[in-house]
Amino acid sequence: MTNALTASGLFGGQFSDPTLAAEFSATAFARRMLAFETAWTRALAGVGAVPEDEAAAALAAIAAFDPGAVAVLAQGSDRDGLPVPALVKALRQGLDAGPAKAIHSGATSQDVIDSAMALTLIAVTEALDARLATALTQLDDLAARFGPAPMMARTRMQAALPATVALRLDAWRRPLADHRARLVPLRAEFGRVQVGGAVGRRDLPEGQGTAVAEEVARLLGLAPAPVWHNDRSGPVAMGHWLTLVAGTAGKIGQDVALMAQQGVDELRLSGAGGSSAMPHKQNPVLAEAMIALARFVAAQQGLLAQAMVHEQERSGAAWALEWLTLPAMAEATGAALCHLTRLLGSIEGMGAA
Amino acid sequence: MTNALTASGLFGGQFSDPTLAAEFSATAFARRMLAFETAWTRALAGVGAVPEDEAAAALAAIAAFDPGAVAVLAQGSDRDGLPVPALVKALRQGLDAGPAKAIHSGATSQDVIDSAMALTLIAVTEALDARLATALTQLDDLAARFGPAPMMARTRMQAALPATVALRLDAWRRPLADHRARLVPLRAEFGRVQVGGAVGRRDLPEGQGTAVAEEVARLLGLAPAPVWHNDRSGPVAMGHWLTLVAGTAGKIGQDVALMAQQGVDELRLSGAGGSSAMPHKQNPVLAEAMIALARFVAAQQGLLAQAMVHEQERSGAAWALEWLTLPAMAEATGAALCHLTRLLGSIEGMGAA
Amino acid sequence: MTNALTASGLFGGQFSDPTLAAEFSATAFARRMLAFETAWTRALAGVGAVPEDEAAAALAAIAAFDPGAVAVLAQGSDRDGLPVPALVKALRQGLDAGPAKAIHSGATSQDVIDSAMALTLIAVTEALDARLATALTQLDDLAARFGPAPMMARTRMQAALPATVALRLDAWRRPLADHRARLVPLRAEFGRVQVGGAVGRRDLPEGQGTAVAEEVARLLGLAPAPVWHNDRSGPVAMGHWLTLVAGTAGKIGQDVALMAQQGVDELRLSGAGGSSAMPHKQNPVLAEAMIALARFVAAQQGLLAQAMVHEQERSGAAWALEWLTLPAMAEATGAALCHLTRLLGSIEGMGAA
Amino acid sequence: MTNALTASGLFGGQFSDPTLAAEFSATAFARRMLAFETAWTRALAGVGAVPEDEAAAALAAIAAFDPGAVAVLAQGSDRDGLPVPALVKALRQGLDAGPAKAIHSGATSQDVIDSAMALTLIAVTEALDARLATALTQLDDLAARFGPAPMMARTRMQAALPATVALRLDAWRRPLADHRARLVPLRAEFGRVQVGGAVGRRDLPEGQGTAVAEEVARLLGLAPAPVWHNDRSGPVAMGHWLTLVAGTAGKIGQDVALMAQQGVDELRLSGAGGSSAMPHKQNPVLAEAMIALARFVAAQQGLLAQAMVHEQERSGAAWALEWLTLPAMAEATGAALCHLTRLLGSIEGMGAA
Repeated sequence: MTNALTASGLFGGQFSDPTLAAEFSATAFARRMLAFETAWTRALAGVGAVPEDEAAAALAAIAAFDPGAVAVLAQGSDRDGLPVPALVKALRQGLDAGPAKAIHSGATSQDVIDSAMALTLIAVTEALDARLATALTQLDDLAARFGPAPMMARTRMQAALPATVALRLDAWRRPLADHRARLVPLRAEFGRVQVGGAVGRRDLPEGQGTAVAEEVARLLGLAPAPVWHNDRSGPVAMGHWLTLVAGTAGKIGQDVALMAQQGVDELRLSGAGGSSAMPHKQNPVLAEAMIALARFVAAQQGLLAQAMVHEQERSGAAWALEWLTLPAMAEATGAALCHLTRLLGSIEGMGAA
Repeated sequence: MTNALTASGLFGGQFSDPTLAAEFSATAFARRMLAFETAWTRALAGVGAVPEDEAAAALAAIAAFDPGAVAVLAQGSDRDGLPVPALVKALRQGLDAGPAKAIHSGATSQDVIDSAMALTLIAVTEALDARLATALTQLDDLAARFGPAPMMARTRMQAALPATVALRLDAWRRPLADHRARLVPLRAEFGRVQVGGAVGRRDLPEGQGTAVAEEVARLLGLAPAPVWHNDRSGPVAMGHWLTLVAGTAGKIGQDVALMAQQGVDELRLSGAGGSSAMPHKQNPVLAEAMIALARFVAAQQGLLAQAMVHEQERSGAAWALEWLTLPAMAEATGAALCHLTRLLGSIEGMGAA
Repeated sequence: MTNALTASGLFGGQFSDPTLAAEFSATAFARRMLAFETAWTRALAGVGAVPEDEAAAALAAIAAFDPGAVAVLAQGSDRDGLPVPALVKALRQGLDAGPAKAIHSGATSQDVIDSAMALTLIAVTEALDARLATALTQLDDLAARFGPAPMMARTRMQAALPATVALRLDAWRRPLADHRARLVPLRAEFGRVQVGGAVGRRDLPEGQGTAVAEEVARLLGLAPAPVWHNDRSGPVAMGHWLTLVAGTAGKIGQDVALMAQQGVDELRLSGAGGSSAMPHKQNPVLAEAMIALARFVAAQQGLLAQAMVHEQERSGAAWALEWLTLPAMAEATGAALCHLTRLLGSIEGMGAA
Repeated sequence: MTNALTASGLFGGQFSDPTLAAEFSATAFARRMLAFETAWTRALAGVGAVPEDEAAAALAAIAAFDPGAVAVLAQGSDRDGLPVPALVKALRQGLDAGPAKAIHSGATSQDVIDSAMALTLIAVTEALDARLATALTQLDDLAARFGPAPMMARTRMQAALPATVALRLDAWRRPLADHRARLVPLRAEFGRVQVGGAVGRRDLPEGQGTAVAEEVARLLGLAPAPVWHNDRSGPVAMGHWLTLVAGTAGKIGQDVALMAQQGVDELRLSGAGGSSAMPHKQNPVLAEAMIALARFVAAQQGLLAQAMVHEQERSGAAWALEWLTLPAMAEATGAALCHLTRLLGSIEGMGAA
């Protein structure tokens, strides 16, 4: 759902991530929908379902479509609930019957949107993975600088036993590294082509549905897979991974906020936030934002998972839950990792004061 | 949190509400923050805490600030977590010590933001109330046209007993009317002035904290109230009301989707959505969006209510949960009511076919 | 939903509340269902819909039913999804046609269960209100003993300005008192009679449906109200109040956990929890449980509110969400208030060490 | 959290699962805690950290402890927040210093509870896997009987294109089979030994922490793993899998409820539920319960994932969220699969009437 307040800039970059937002922009998404249509037409031609020359005319029409022409898609969505019928109509505009039929025939809106979303999520995980790698390097550096410094281990909000900074840094590092490793099996869950046709039978072009689906997957760099129109395990798995990543960032944020307390004094930050009433204060604002973002992402997963209750061959209501949650979860996790790298980079000292 | 996909326009207006979004825009919010600072300075002068001429200079500076100058506030938030320190600094820029001190002295960032949010939420409820009134009129009209028509009553997804369309329309109408009536006590919960000062003692100007708080409330049209810095019952109550409104819209959406089924045939709509693969279909896309929006708003309430765990005198992490949820919940509820009035307006027939 | 682990006793009383659990026991609930049937038969006789002698025989049969005979209701629920059909059958067993017809005729399962739940929730709020009153007395006592002691005010996890213990105690006290005051309007939301009959028309006995409904309400001590079969605003409002109460308890728990930290040392507790590995530790286990319970209750509200999407005249799926959440939320809130009074009673000192 | 209403039996077995509940009973959990202590003492002896005879005396004491003696553990939890300190004290009772030291030394409460929970979750997944296998067999049988029958494919709640029952059955079958396959990598996530010692350093017995951890894992049949005291990715992954399984069951329940509608008539069930007011009705009560259970499990995942924000070396508050959610999620998923197999077994006909 849109949130005009956090999108307004009034809170700066605390609750947004321009890089990931760009992946979910209309233009980027339209470009990926066009990539699907391109692959589809090529695959149709590849199996001989449409003549090469008609495919060539179709591909030219697809290539000529401006992915920035959002207005036509928006109007289509207001009518159809989805931008794809309007997109297909626009692509076929002015084409002869042959080339027109070489576009989208045998596919359905869900094939286009789910496959475009899979491509988007791959880009998202790649961007997040790079930030995780940066954070791991930073943590190695902090371990080298402060690891041996004494610091109290704390359990259940109480001083437990004397330990070192390395214990805490290890607890931050290990899950982040694990989350990177989890990306490999995860991609097999969400990075799958969607090809089902009107009601999920993958029966067009006749006798060649599977061949076309596999070729579309290959062309798009997605995993081949059976139809998953009404099985939303893949998007839910993506959300699950985001909760893990944002959750670890939230754990680090919570630790930092506790370490920075007066009387505890286990962490020195440069450039923490100021107060309108108390100019002497240095608020750990990035750490707090990371906690809030972790709770945000976790709660959305409880909604996203409701998308599994996807009635019959296609549910508009259940499907929409994914659009309402996944992009926001990705952007929130992205923001949390941006904050994490900024926060780790601003640490000037760790360990008992 | 931002959601670049639903904000992109790619899905048209299904998941956005430009009218309510405008209430949460940076400019609208900045204007309300300036309203608070104006009222504050006036109240300070009113109790004699600052001289009239210094107050006048201060007010002129506040009036001169361009609420559209978001960049300076955004930069401030990136540093401080909040736009208020930067706003106050900008307002005082170039003023002599006296007028500078007539701005914001004794207040704190939270006073400004919470009061501005209260004003925003009042505007939001007024807009939603008007849409509820429209829907009620539409329902009266539908009752007049179709109320006596026979229609099966259905319980637990089974045909129960013969009844009339009026039974269903009544069940739609009554909660919507109740939600309107609930607005009066609700406004006393969320439409409260926030005046606490740095740590919630409301002790500045000395001996006059309460008088200033009451005058600020009066000037802003908010209810006077004790400090609620770390008691978030008010925003949570607002969220609760939104879940009720969106929930009833979702119930209506669910009913419409069921009524429009082939074989059930209890409702005829004009202009439902088309399909890229099945041109003959008429999808009840607004009804489906209303279901998704109801589930979205409900789930956010489970997160917003976590803001009650607001540690110490002020929690950046818990407070941010409100910004991440309430505007999106309001916009989602607004979109649901827009869809509701469009949907009711598109009904061409009700009752057994 | 059942949770065999927290019900097992293995975690002691941390996640249970025997007093409130008793209100949701099968026997207590059956007794309230019988109270409804009793009131219903009396009301039928009162309006002359059944002869007095048949009503008397019916009432005798209802009075003779053992509310502890759960097995027959359980078996009925396994078949029907609800215990009411089996209950009605058992009540009518062996009666002549006249007295048999004086039982339940014109009512439906939902009337019985919703009204019995309303009675249960009234008992729940009364028990919680008494605990809130106790906590307020304890807070007054703590304020008398420690209020003037110096203590740092803390905002955004940072020392802000010197203040006193009274500031914190006030912030704990005020919302608890407000939650008590909120009970009056709340009871008008959830403490309503449910009388709708098979599909919500309240049309039986013919021409006397409203008279019977009002009499049943009077006899049960519930508010008269229109049918709310498929408008679940009342139960959702009850859940909302529980999130507020549990939320404030969670805020206090979070504060206590922070105050008890070494280096902060703002609170001395007697008898905090021990550790298997570190016998010297004193863990603030009640405070931690209160935080967890607050988050638990808040999250359930996000699910309970989904019950608003209640399709057609009665939804088994949406209705069940209330049973899966409300009792657990009430018990969790009850446990949190038990912990609160124990915790407040164990405070031996407050203020800077 | 306990839910006295759904545990009361009043709703029969709709919201409970006795088999899985038994795995979370106090006795079963105590038995697994004793299994950990047994393995721990053996591992200590195995690396020579304690003499064989002292280990033998310790093992005899552990073997002699009655896992049904819950009262002593409950009392301990009321004091300590956890049953382990009381358990260890009881095990050491009456032992000489040597054997006493051969029990639990170097371990901590969290090692015991997390490892016992991992063992419990393994048993849970095995039980669920068996039910999934049963459901798959039933679906194969239904496909053989009804697969070729014509049935309308329905998308967005509208008739789309003629298809066959096989299309729907395939959509039910595939994700269930996938969920079974997901168990293998999942077990590596949650079925891990927990050995960290007091604050997670795994440093006792000195120089042998890793050897002991690996031996404990081997003895318990758990995967060896680094300390995961404050990284809760494993339990959250378990919850994620449960949302997928319950979600697919909920999807099937939703489909069944829609198929059983009058006018749609795509499914004939034997023995559906009765109504107190409308004896002619056959309500699909199992299908409705499955929908509610899916939404319940999904929403809990949004809370469970908050356990990732696990402060410092151990958080009582965050940890408790797992106990409040995971057992209930497992039992709900178990109930949903019981309902699924009963429901599939009661199908007497599929396809257009």
